[in-house]
Amino acid sequence: MLRLYHWPLDPAGRMVRLVLSEKGEPFEAVPSRPWAPELEIASIAPGAVAPAVVSTHGSARFAASGTRAICEHLEEVRPVPSLLPDDLSERAEARRLWTWVEAGMEEVTDTLLSERVLQWTRRDRQPDSEKLRRGAHALRGRLTFLNALAETRGYLAGRQLSLADFSAAAHLSAYDYFGDVQWDAVPDLKAWYMRIKSRPSFRPLLADRLEAARPVSHYAELDF
Amino acid sequence: MLRLYHWPLDPAGRMVRLVLSEKGEPFEAVPSRPWAPELEIASIAPGAVAPAVVSTHGSARFAASGTRAICEHLEEVRPVPSLLPDDLSERAEARRLWTWVEAGMEEVTDTLLSERVLQWTRRDRQPDSEKLRRGAHALRGRLTFLNALAETRGYLAGRQLSLADFSAAAHLSAYDYFGDVQWDAVPDLKAWYMRIKSRPSFRPLLADRLEAARPVSHYAELDF
Repeated sequence: MLRLYHWPLDPAGRMVRLVLSEKGEPFEAVPSRPWAPELEIASIAPGAVAPAVVSTHGSARFAASGTRAICEHLEEVRPVPSLLPDDLSERAEARRLWTWVEAGMEEVTDTLLSERVLQWTRRDRQPDSEKLRRGAHALRGRLTFLNALAETRGYLAGRQLSLADFSAAAHLSAYDYFGDVQWDAVPDLKAWYMRIKSRPSFRPLLADRLEAARPVSHYAELDF
Repeated sequence: MLRLYHWPLDPAGRMVRLVLSEKGEPFEAVPSRPWAPELEIASIAPGAVAPAVVSTHGSARFAASGTRAICEHLEEVRPVPSLLPDDLSERAEARRLWTWVEAGMEEVTDTLLSERVLQWTRRDRQPDSEKLRRGAHALRGRLTFLNALAETRGYLAGRQLSLADFSAAAHLSAYDYFGDVQWDAVPDLKAWYMRIKSRPSFRPLLADRLEAARPVSHYAELDF
């Protein structure tokens, strides 16, 4: 069985949990704090970080770190259900958007999400309001773009659910824990999120609770 | 035939040119300036940018934008020669490093390379020495990491040439045009680069000439 090292509110770890679950791949989830990573992660390769998966079958060991390596691997060894469209241009579009989401949301994660987590775990610390403002502004721009895709296409890369959707939903679900997604401004994206959020693979994410901070009231509601 | 839109000194476009050539995929290269992109790129998808490929076979059109979408597509439709290792852990490692190179070199490209290009194309402008300094510092750190991999593994992800090598070589070749890679400080990486640079797929890159700026003297030399 795969062992997954992840930190519950890390968007990258959330994407891997969603994809493992969608693929029906059983796994043991080991929470790993970004500021105190497990030794086994470092043993994968120089600079490896969570999310990381390790499996041992007899003498054969498989290890991978990062959403790209893990999810493309799962798509290759567990092609059914497929999370990349068969149509070659839609397939390319799913990978382009997945890359876009990861690069574009990095700024939001590094400012807004990091600041929220620090705000709750170090109570004596004043939140950096400039960082929060910058993250919220970046998030608004990304949401507008994603809303336009959801409106015209149904799912982000086309008519078929793909890794691009799971990447975007993983990021937004982490921001949503702290109530930072202004859903009412992006109605088509909200409808898209309600569909993804209702999938069985999403349930464990909605059950996540940070010790120091409860999520906003609508966080786990499927009809919000 | 594929039409490739690219800008000659863009590391991402360079990677795609290398991979197309390694795969033996014939293509027509259309130089496209980042500051004045072609209309056909925008027609691929909202927010699509170069490098981008488009092909039309009768009524079937294929289009893709970005190294990830294009190179994974080529690996799927032209699996021979393979540029991802067969061993599953090495395969995951190649994808992890490819991602690491693209994310890690972004800072170098946005500072050092951009500044060099501006320096040559707008002669009336003073280069931003703080940006150059920041880019050079970031590059030194990345080179040290890559040198350690080349020393212990031969190729970056293991004993087999992979997309991780082409991504790294594409980036370094663009910085090397302006003489910004201190090869003597990283002897194992230099030996690795000499091997990659000698491949036939590299020749077109070494023949690139920016109208406003000639490359440093060793740029196209295979033994430098």
